[in-house]
Amino acid sequence: MNPTLEIFSQGEEIVTGQTVDTNAAWLSEHAVNMGLTVTRHTAVGDKLDDLIALLREISIRADCCICTGGLGPTSDDLTAEAVAKAFDLPLEFDAVAFEQVKRFFALRNREMPDSNRKQAMFPKGAERIDNAWGTAPGFSLQVGRCWFAFVPGVPNEMRHLFLESIQPTLASRFLLQPNRLITIRTLGLGESAIQQRIDAIEIPAQVQLGFRASPDDVQTKLLFPQNYPEAAMTTLVDKMAVELGDHVFAIDGLGRASGDLVFTVDQLMIAGQHTLAVAETASQGLLAAKCIGAQWLLESRYQQSLEKLGQSLAVTVNADDLIASAQAIAGEINKTGCAELVLVQLYSGDNKTFHDKDRAIILYNVLLTGDGFHQTTHSVAGPIERKQNQAALLALDLLRRYLQHKEL
Amino acid sequence: MNPTLEIFSQGEEIVTGQTVDTNAAWLSEHAVNMGLTVTRHTAVGDKLDDLIALLREISIRADCCICTGGLGPTSDDLTAEAVAKAFDLPLEFDAVAFEQVKRFFALRNREMPDSNRKQAMFPKGAERIDNAWGTAPGFSLQVGRCWFAFVPGVPNEMRHLFLESIQPTLASRFLLQPNRLITIRTLGLGESAIQQRIDAIEIPAQVQLGFRASPDDVQTKLLFPQNYPEAAMTTLVDKMAVELGDHVFAIDGLGRASGDLVFTVDQLMIAGQHTLAVAETASQGLLAAKCIGAQWLLESRYQQSLEKLGQSLAVTVNADDLIASAQAIAGEINKTGCAELVLVQLYSGDNKTFHDKDRAIILYNVLLTGDGFHQTTHSVAGPIERKQNQAALLALDLLRRYLQHKEL
Repeated sequence: MNPTLEIFSQGEEIVTGQTVDTNAAWLSEHAVNMGLTVTRHTAVGDKLDDLIALLREISIRADCCICTGGLGPTSDDLTAEAVAKAFDLPLEFDAVAFEQVKRFFALRNREMPDSNRKQAMFPKGAERIDNAWGTAPGFSLQVGRCWFAFVPGVPNEMRHLFLESIQPTLASRFLLQPNRLITIRTLGLGESAIQQRIDAIEIPAQVQLGFRASPDDVQTKLLFPQNYPEAAMTTLVDKMAVELGDHVFAIDGLGRASGDLVFTVDQLMIAGQHTLAVAETASQGLLAAKCIGAQWLLESRYQQSLEKLGQSLAVTVNADDLIASAQAIAGEINKTGCAELVLVQLYSGDNKTFHDKDRAIILYNVLLTGDGFHQTTHSVAGPIERKQNQAALLALDLLRRYLQHKEL
Repeated sequence: MNPTLEIFSQGEEIVTGQTVDTNAAWLSEHAVNMGLTVTRHTAVGDKLDDLIALLREISIRADCCICTGGLGPTSDDLTAEAVAKAFDLPLEFDAVAFEQVKRFFALRNREMPDSNRKQAMFPKGAERIDNAWGTAPGFSLQVGRCWFAFVPGVPNEMRHLFLESIQPTLASRFLLQPNRLITIRTLGLGESAIQQRIDAIEIPAQVQLGFRASPDDVQTKLLFPQNYPEAAMTTLVDKMAVELGDHVFAIDGLGRASGDLVFTVDQLMIAGQHTLAVAETASQGLLAAKCIGAQWLLESRYQQSLEKLGQSLAVTVNADDLIASAQAIAGEINKTGCAELVLVQLYSGDNKTFHDKDRAIILYNVLLTGDGFHQTTHSVAGPIERKQNQAALLALDLLRRYLQHKEL
């Protein structure tokens, strides 16, 4: 079994919600990649008793713990004191740490306030973690089962101290076997639909299966232990990808560059040296916005009224046949513009339907290419921001499917 | 003493660092404003034993607990089962919840997989929390000292359920003394610039001052105790607003409807019955996208090349005089379109500069109104997504300033 790690974040600003704790996620991701099992994140405020209780809990529960925050010079920075009290250790003055704190102020031509002296007081038995990035040195300490590392909560300092000191120490203290994470990214299938499709595939007990639904995709995650045979891994991933079919737009973790849908489209557009013009309705600019900086996106337009969109291009549109209307619009944009591909998105449903989270709009996407028209139709419900986002993604996904099939 | 609240986030994606837990901060901020004392955040993964242990701990430690995540249909969604095991309660089928889950699928014209049936199983004694925003209903339950509320981890659903159900329930179950939070929202001033401007204003010891910088604004926060005199509060807020001047686009907490910059612009556009056409460059659709569903936004266009933008409107443009070019473009859009106001955004800086986080682009915004042209110029650096977002916001802010001055 992998050694267990807990993350402990200290600070009133975290527990009251003034600051989102990004440190915990950053540290966890790095720890998991190293082969540690992260079992808990805990955040508490600046109350000495809470800190003491938590430190004691963790010391009997985890193999190691990284604690951020509470190392500053002010009265609410209580970490060293809490550690001393929790484990009945005296605080001792560290002359080297004190010199480092003093030097930090001298370098900035600032006088060191007396309160900073406390940053050089560590519990007996602690090892100093030098901090070239701020005033507060960190420290580490073995207590019973658990190896603790205490570092400042400032993200930049914390990251440096982790990479330069904590990571190598963990690697030498524990026998680690990094896992391998494969993520299959899909669009257009819900979590439960995915589970149904892959239900018949047998997943070995050592492989952990998980799902993550975000506004932009649904991710099917497979976590393989280090020594899992490469061929068996590939076979399992391929089986799943086959069941999920065309909905799969990327697979992360196989060593190829991969990412979100926009990344996939971007790679395909650049590889094929394509260019694109877009007319958006329900996504209202979001499709273009998602492709920020892409050289292949030459132009995009949004018109609130279908009639005005037709007029601006001098084509006849018909709200009762949106596929034909989208084809006519795409044809005209193709004639007047200079993009090779033209993507037109229309939708049916009035303004009230669009705003009503309980009603669905129907999206009509038409892609005009050198070999003719390609189209998809989708029903999308939910809050207006979801409709907008899905509209942008589903139109881009039509482009992605076309480009991927062309590549095959 | 205020009642204590703990936040409990469930999910392998949180504990492994795949997702930053923004729910905990959002919930804490709202709970603190209500007058609750948030004592801990804890996140654990999808392991049944960990969940059971944590639920038991919290049930004897806190007065209430909000738990997010683990209510989905898949095998790693274990919340209801963990609650049942932790407190020795049978799981019972809730027919109303089941109808809700079924309706969600019916609305989307999708078949409900069998696995979703488990979302209608609640521990005996639980009260259902209806969820109009997704498939998973939540539930609440009193166990010993602690009142637990369980809601989905999807931020949009969680926020709705908190505001519509949990917040009123907490307010009726506990005798709360809410603080009063006033938030001054600004665009175009950094945190330290704000601090400098308000440095001379004396802030009473009972009032807590804080700052929060987000991609969309900088918020200056004043937290007043419940019985703080209204007149003194208003005077202090006014003094600050005067020092921050035109940069203030909204003040939250004074009882008037208020929100982000788009909300402010939306209110002003609707009140004045204005309409708008937009030409975007650096924001590349994001300005239009931010105004999703707004009836007053009639059209928007993006052209990668300034030359092509000029050609498409048959106006002469000159990269050396972007203000004059933007005015010419706005004039032509005004002639051919039917919007009352025209907003044109251009920028100088080549594609490499745009992508380089260490180099700045210059934004030129021109607004054409019945009483002529209004313009602003800004230098924006940082990653391309920041440039894009600032470009959208700063153009909208020109519109906001014009509409607010007109109103005065």
